[in-house]
Amino acid sequence: MNANSDRVVVGVDFGTLSGRAVVVRVRDGADLGTAVHEYAHRVIEEALPGSGVGLGPDWALQAPADWIDVLRHAVPKALAAAQVPASAVVGIGTDFTACTVLPATSDGTPLCEILPDRPHAWPKLWKHHAAQPHADRINAIAAERGEPWLSRYGGKISSEWAFAKGLQVLEEDPEIYARADRWIEAADWIIWQLCGVETRNVCTAGYKAIHQDGGYPSEEFLAAVNPAFAGFTAKLGQELAPLGGLAGRLTARAAAWTGLPEGIAVAVGNVDAHVTAAAADAVLPGRMVAIMGTSTCHVMNSDRLAEVPGMCGVVRDGIVPGLWGYEAGQSAVGDIFAWFVETSVPSWYAERAAQRGLGIHEYLTELAAAQPVGGHGLVALDWHGGNRSVLVDHNLSGVIVGQTLATRPEDVYRALIEATAYGARMIVETFESAGVPVEEFVVAGGLLKNGFVLQVYADVLRRPLSVIGSDQGPALGSAIHAAVAAAEYPDIPTAAAAMGRRWACAYVPDKERADVYDRLYAEYRRLHDHFADGGLLHRLRAIRNEAGA
Amino acid sequence: MNANSDRVVVGVDFGTLSGRAVVVRVRDGADLGTAVHEYAHRVIEEALPGSGVGLGPDWALQAPADWIDVLRHAVPKALAAAQVPASAVVGIGTDFTACTVLPATSDGTPLCEILPDRPHAWPKLWKHHAAQPHADRINAIAAERGEPWLSRYGGKISSEWAFAKGLQVLEEDPEIYARADRWIEAADWIIWQLCGVETRNVCTAGYKAIHQDGGYPSEEFLAAVNPAFAGFTAKLGQELAPLGGLAGRLTARAAAWTGLPEGIAVAVGNVDAHVTAAAADAVLPGRMVAIMGTSTCHVMNSDRLAEVPGMCGVVRDGIVPGLWGYEAGQSAVGDIFAWFVETSVPSWYAERAAQRGLGIHEYLTELAAAQPVGGHGLVALDWHGGNRSVLVDHNLSGVIVGQTLATRPEDVYRALIEATAYGARMIVETFESAGVPVEEFVVAGGLLKNGFVLQVYADVLRRPLSVIGSDQGPALGSAIHAAVAAAEYPDIPTAAAAMGRRWACAYVPDKERADVYDRLYAEYRRLHDHFADGGLLHRLRAIRNEAGA
Repeated sequence: MNANSDRVVVGVDFGTLSGRAVVVRVRDGADLGTAVHEYAHRVIEEALPGSGVGLGPDWALQAPADWIDVLRHAVPKALAAAQVPASAVVGIGTDFTACTVLPATSDGTPLCEILPDRPHAWPKLWKHHAAQPHADRINAIAAERGEPWLSRYGGKISSEWAFAKGLQVLEEDPEIYARADRWIEAADWIIWQLCGVETRNVCTAGYKAIHQDGGYPSEEFLAAVNPAFAGFTAKLGQELAPLGGLAGRLTARAAAWTGLPEGIAVAVGNVDAHVTAAAADAVLPGRMVAIMGTSTCHVMNSDRLAEVPGMCGVVRDGIVPGLWGYEAGQSAVGDIFAWFVETSVPSWYAERAAQRGLGIHEYLTELAAAQPVGGHGLVALDWHGGNRSVLVDHNLSGVIVGQTLATRPEDVYRALIEATAYGARMIVETFESAGVPVEEFVVAGGLLKNGFVLQVYADVLRRPLSVIGSDQGPALGSAIHAAVAAAEYPDIPTAAAAMGRRWACAYVPDKERADVYDRLYAEYRRLHDHFADGGLLHRLRAIRNEAGA
Repeated sequence: MNANSDRVVVGVDFGTLSGRAVVVRVRDGADLGTAVHEYAHRVIEEALPGSGVGLGPDWALQAPADWIDVLRHAVPKALAAAQVPASAVVGIGTDFTACTVLPATSDGTPLCEILPDRPHAWPKLWKHHAAQPHADRINAIAAERGEPWLSRYGGKISSEWAFAKGLQVLEEDPEIYARADRWIEAADWIIWQLCGVETRNVCTAGYKAIHQDGGYPSEEFLAAVNPAFAGFTAKLGQELAPLGGLAGRLTARAAAWTGLPEGIAVAVGNVDAHVTAAAADAVLPGRMVAIMGTSTCHVMNSDRLAEVPGMCGVVRDGIVPGLWGYEAGQSAVGDIFAWFVETSVPSWYAERAAQRGLGIHEYLTELAAAQPVGGHGLVALDWHGGNRSVLVDHNLSGVIVGQTLATRPEDVYRALIEATAYGARMIVETFESAGVPVEEFVVAGGLLKNGFVLQVYADVLRRPLSVIGSDQGPALGSAIHAAVAAAEYPDIPTAAAAMGRRWACAYVPDKERADVYDRLYAEYRRLHDHFADGGLLHRLRAIRNEAGA
């Protein structure tokens, strides 16, 4: 690469409610222009567009046309904002939420465009949770048969993933299942639209479709789940495409949508969390990237394979080629703080915050930050959305201990923040105990804006935190993959070093605070271990479900 | 007694913030007139009146002049409201908060009227909690020495009681201790003011001053606590006066204060909770009276002596002569609901309640009452103010389990109400396991106004609830004692049957709800037993205290 090159790449991040395009300079990763396009249909949860056919509880769908609209609107706008000629663009890369997955014909036509009044014809968004019974059966049978891949997923696959969602289609609408020549991640489907070539990326295949050691689960296993499910893997991709690889070249049709030159490189599809590691220049082994937002996703590379209890998955080449990519997660983080502020803060706090010209989060943060560690006398378990890692149990729930008649909202707010930090420490320690060292903890995501939260994490983790140097995390990561696909850099680590950014030691632990947190974390662990078997929490959940029935 | 008599008695209830006088017809207990007088000094917690001398944390004092003002204002007003001639009044009875206790000279002059700038010269209100270290030492030494009285108090005396408070005076202001000829309950001091005779009632002597089997703790024991404490019991009463007994006759001075005839009967002093049993006509064995307000006090007579773990005390003749009077308690009940409403209900709930013209308690109650049992998926421990019975541990704190991102304020509100009901069931079951049957559960106190709360209690307890038939509980009970002292009735049970009232089966359990509550109560017990050792909760409290120091 010519160091003075003004060549640029485009990264497109497909989120839950909108898509974001960013134009990035190849030479240094500079963000030259960005644009966002909101999905017209957002998340489809109640009824299908057009027909109005109703959906069940825990359903969540999306519309493929909304994704194409991002290409048609956000990409040209970002290019215009960047004030660079389209001819300077040498590649495009994308990332998607996952597992967001759809049935399609053999030419890539989404079934929902042929049979729009059939719920199962539509793409299932990552947070479609109606396949839990199907996931439960897959897990039970896999455990019974001792399927070798199960340990790669912390002992359980999620109801969010491709096999559970596919099984739900088979058992609830077999005709749609039969007509689905392809069962494809949106991450790969969008690449098909861009370059006209069907590819399957290593990342979603590994983390969401149980592709391990060169293959999917066996026909025998699938037949044991349901005889009609035996052929399911024929709907998936057989050859996987490496991350940072070239999926194909931009078609004339896609060039017309985007305003980009026909024939530029289109990178293999990828996942929002995983591309963020490149954006933070944190793809080397031992750099754990925590994308902290409504929930937290942790991704980290390692040169060794280990069975880390309760991780979401470990996939060879799953973040960058040549390394084992680990993923772990916390089901709810920012969501817990938002829930608390919405449901548990009295009006007189809202009034005081307003008088000070502060939002409630800011006001509570100010009050909480003024407290000494442990001054509230509380410890909480951050399981309000279940526990993804290290317990892999969505039927757990939150616990708070130590409230008195003197407990104030800022006390609970701080305790909830701390609980999520303890949850993060539990994940870090679990990795290290399993022989996978965490050498650096790098933060990305929406919670970057709350410095108090990050300071608590530094103190609880007893280690400095690095932070990503861009507020376009995933889109920048996609752009970096585009640069590799366009052969501007030889591989992702080299491109990430040149184009990604992070600030090391942005938050440094305070020894005194960390000492008190060590004691509180010990209490958290005791509570964690006491409630981890789920006995009491599962029984409460069962009573609740019976009451609702 | 002449059944057509129009003779009346006056009952005066000295509470925490005010005193209430009621004029009651002897014949049938009819409430003819009532008046309230608020204490000018309310509770003295920050600084002494006049001198402004500051008080330490957890101090709570009162002013004797405020009590006399109740006699001077509330009694004449109640008489006027009753529209009966003063000549119809044949007796006066009183009840007081306890242990509210003061140092006085041998003629009954409160030391605070001689040395007003000395904090320890003032009456210590029941909720003065600064003598906890003194109580701790008394308990430790009593346990070590195997003092026989300890088991009569569930194994621990409270920091609120006469010996702990007296020891605090000795060790913090020995001069005041030396000048205190008397260490006297306000319940007895007020009687002294009314009739000019110093008496000591069986109830406070037994429940608050460790008088058991005819005597106080031994000199040897007290000397072991502190050599200078050995003579403490000389400041207490040696001969005890029976409840319902005649303390003396109204003096001319007290007649002038009250507008009542000189020479009428003055009943022996008593305690607010304990006189309520008479007002509810619930003094027979096995009738447990729960006075439910900010906290709950349970009183019950039995013809048998048993060691009930964690009770507050058992005292021979302590509620009525001839029976064993048991007391137990829940440290915080209405206080927990009030704390929740003040600190944990968002403004949009306040707005909806206001739109409906409801208070927040009413609105939350309405929402909570519409739920099926167990529908919220929560279980809580009601220890926000510690646990009086059956754990006798003020350093415990609240726990709530099962919160999710879908948990709403009414869910928590209901769970907290239920937690207090489980706490009540724990007390009932502990009595019954110890061989003291609870045949009827009778509710009095401020929470009577919340029918939903009482229905929850009926369902959780799986038994019908009776409710007191008067909203003047303690004052009516005092009037009943006045009628006995005036020899209008031969004894308290007879007077209570004629003048007291309760409605049997006012709330009846629903079998289906009770069945689900059995399951939830089993979870409560598991949580209770898990946290009962105090390990985690005590460590959190210690960390909190260190943080505050």
